[in-house]
Order: sequence, then structure tokens, then C-alpha cells
Amino acid sequence: METLTPVSACRRIATIHLRTTQPTEFIDLTDRLERLVADAGLRFGILNVQTLHTTTAIVVNEHEPLLLADFQSLLEAAAPDNGNYQHDDTSARTVNVTEAERPNGHAHCRALLLPPSACLNVVGGRLLLGRWQRVFLVELDGPRERELSVIIFGETSR
Amino acid sequence: METLTPVSACRRIATIHLRTTQPTEFIDLTDRLERLVADAGLRFGILNVQTLHTTTAIVVNEHEPLLLADFQSLLEAAAPDNGNYQHDDTSARTVNVTEAERPNGHAHCRALLLPPSACLNVVGGRLLLGRWQRVFLVELDGPRERELSVIIFGETSR
Amino acid sequence: METLTPVSACRRIATIHLRTTQPTEFIDLTDRLERLVADAGLRFGILNVQTLHTTTAIVVNEHEPLLLADFQSLLEAAAPDNGNYQHDDTSARTVNVTEAERPNGHAHCRALLLPPSACLNVVGGRLLLGRWQRVFLVELDGPRERELSVIIFGETSR
Repeated sequence: METLTPVSACRRIATIHLRTTQPTEFIDLTDRLERLVADAGLRFGILNVQTLHTTTAIVVNEHEPLLLADFQSLLEAAAPDNGNYQHDDTSARTVNVTEAERPNGHAHCRALLLPPSACLNVVGGRLLLGRWQRVFLVELDGPRERELSVIIFGETSR
Repeated sequence: METLTPVSACRRIATIHLRTTQPTEFIDLTDRLERLVADAGLRFGILNVQTLHTTTAIVVNEHEPLLLADFQSLLEAAAPDNGNYQHDDTSARTVNVTEAERPNGHAHCRALLLPPSACLNVVGGRLLLGRWQRVFLVELDGPRERELSVIIFGETSR
Repeated sequence: METLTPVSACRRIATIHLRTTQPTEFIDLTDRLERLVADAGLRFGILNVQTLHTTTAIVVNEHEPLLLADFQSLLEAAAPDNGNYQHDDTSARTVNVTEAERPNGHAHCRALLLPPSACLNVVGGRLLLGRWQRVFLVELDGPRERELSVIIFGETSR
């Protein structure tokens, strides 16, 4: 345990734009987030990365391709692609029906089970992640253009 | 990416009290949270909204009534109302048994799968949400009186 | 709603090391976290507790032993111990295969459904938790040595 003497405040906001290429996809954001922390020059604080969409999620887990395939199977079992979703019955819908509407009830349901943001600690000038931890945007209804927001709060204390 | 020059600190705490009316219910908190951010007068930072209950959750998704019905079906499939929960066997329980005890193992199990709080970015003086994103309290064992805590941290930087 | 006048900044970082003893285990962190908040001497702010592992999670729910057994059953149903996980086929794996590798695809899948951190409000000098809320590290692939990071941000305002 360590008590920190604040030297000066240091804060950073950033937007990440990216284009997904698959219906379901795990996009590793870790290098980008680590660069943002390094560029911000802070010593400790928090980083909050938030998706701006309702058919995506932010998760932290291991980047191992076969494991990501397991995750996809888990999400498919929890909310099957060919399931019966009232949200996809546009004839019954009364709100939020757009021209670009596509059947994506399964994607919203999968997103409900995953977090829309990750709040992570920054310690010693680095984004604090365990050996196997990587931060992913999870695309659940791609391919699409996606946008994420990152805020970094911290102190340049010594 | 933008580095911010702090002008002065600005922080706000608030409690939201509300009464739910259904066993399962999605209560849209977005307008209330946006007002809190506007009243706080901050330019950027974070808002953390936290439920104080173990049979509720805070989620971010689209406010479309048929989709909310899909979410309810998903939660019912994951932890059925009429499932067999040891927590509901008050004769076997040794701790936390109150006079007002009611069978709600399903509600706790559903809450386990959803987050108890949402940490969201505040950018340009506004709670940052995508086009379809709304913030909900999810009641899983209503109707009840519920209480939420909101903290807003930020800077009035320009 | 209350606007706070910052008096002085107060921040604390801590690492929690612990050894789990079961394959699946809920370890109550609440007393430890409350002590950290008290020692930090802050009046209000946030506490972010983050696991550094990919087969653990941080959840907030009631500490009632039979309910924790229900949670274990729920996780077993969502991602069975004896399920078929590509991650466990080390002959097919191309990355991250270590000497200590053990079949734990189920544990990663369970972790995907639970959060890796909890961001909680600190109000009036105390970690703000509802009557039944307790904070747990969830071990999903124990027994193991585990490490958590805690950051506390706050103000000693009056």
C-alpha cells in the first residue's frame, strides 16, 4: 500500500475509430490503450474505455485464437443467431425503426451479458494488466464502423 | 486525442430513489443522469452510477420495448423463476434470513450475470453515449423501493 | 445532490495477494477494501478493484453460503467443466502454451460472463455498499496464487 503525493494533474481523452470485418469479432485494443497511457505521461490513475454502441462490448481476457472461438460458441449458445427475438419483428416495433434496420436481437442479447466499458488501473506509468490480460472490443453485429471513447485520469506523482 | 488543461475541479454526488412496479423492469435513468452532469457544470470526467442492491443491475443498451422483452426472456432462460435455488430454502439457511425474506434466488443469479454499476465518460460537458445507448436500472425482484448512488468527477477545463 | 468543495487530493494504490483453495471459490474482499478506504482518509471518490487474471472475476452480491452454491451451479450450467473447449486442445494451439498449461477453457468462459473489476463509490469516508452488498473475488480455476490491484481516488473535502 502506498500513499501518493500528487505533483500535477494529467488527463487525456481520445476517440478510437475502427472498422470491424466479421459478424462476431474480438479486436485487441491493448497496444492502442497502452500507447495512450504512455503518451499521457501519467504515473497512476485510471483508464476508462467505453463503447458507443449497443451491439458491442468491452471485455478483458486472454488473446488466444481458439479461446476466442470458444467465446463465440458460448455467446451463440446463450443467444442463438437464429433465435426468436421480438426486436427483429419490425412490423410489431413502434420505436427506433431505421432504414438500415437489420435483425440483430441476438447481438443486443449477447451485449447485455457483457460489459460496455472497462475501468482499469494505471500504476507506475503503465496500464496495469496481468500476464494474460488483453482488452478487446467485441463486435457482435458486424461488419460495421465502430467508435470508442477513452478517458485517462491520473497524476504525475513520484 | 486531446490533452486537457485543468481549470478547476468539479465533483458531485447524488442519490436516486425510485419505486419499481414490476418483478422485472428496465427503468431508463439516462435523462436523470444527463441532468446531473449538466448541473455539475463539468467539462470532462467520469460518472459512476452504482446500485445499492443485490437483486438489481445497471446496464447500457437500447430503449426499445420489444428488445427489453427479449432481455427478460434471456434472463428467464439463464436463471428461471421456478428453478431450484438453495438460497430459497430458508430452513437450510444459516445466515441473512430476515422476516421479509422472499424466494429470490433467480433474481440474485440474474444479477450475477449483469454489472452492479456503469462507469461512463463525460466529454464536452455531456454524458457520452452513442446514438442508441441508454442507461437502465434493471429491477430483478420487484416491486421494491430502490436506491442508487451517482458520483461525477470532472474538470471545468476549456 | 451535493456539490463538494475539494480541500486536498487523496489517492491510494494497493495490491492484494491471496491464495485460493478451491477450483471455484468466492472470497469476500469487503473488509479489506473498507480498511483501505479508511486508511486512505478520503471523504469521497471512487475505488476501483481489478483482478490481474483471466480466470477470475470481481462481483458484488450477497454473502450467503447457499446463494454462493447457486452461483456455482449457474456458472457450471453456462460453461460446464466437462464441456468441449478448443482452448484445451493444446495440440491445436499455436500461442500462449505454457508448461503449466491445464485445461481451463470453462474457467475463461465463465470469466467472460463476469466483470474483471468493480468501480465503487466512496461517500462520507466509507465504501458505499448497500445492506447486502459484498465484494468478491471469484476464483474460477483454483487453487492458485492471485493478485488484485486497488486504486482509490478521492478528496478530503468537508
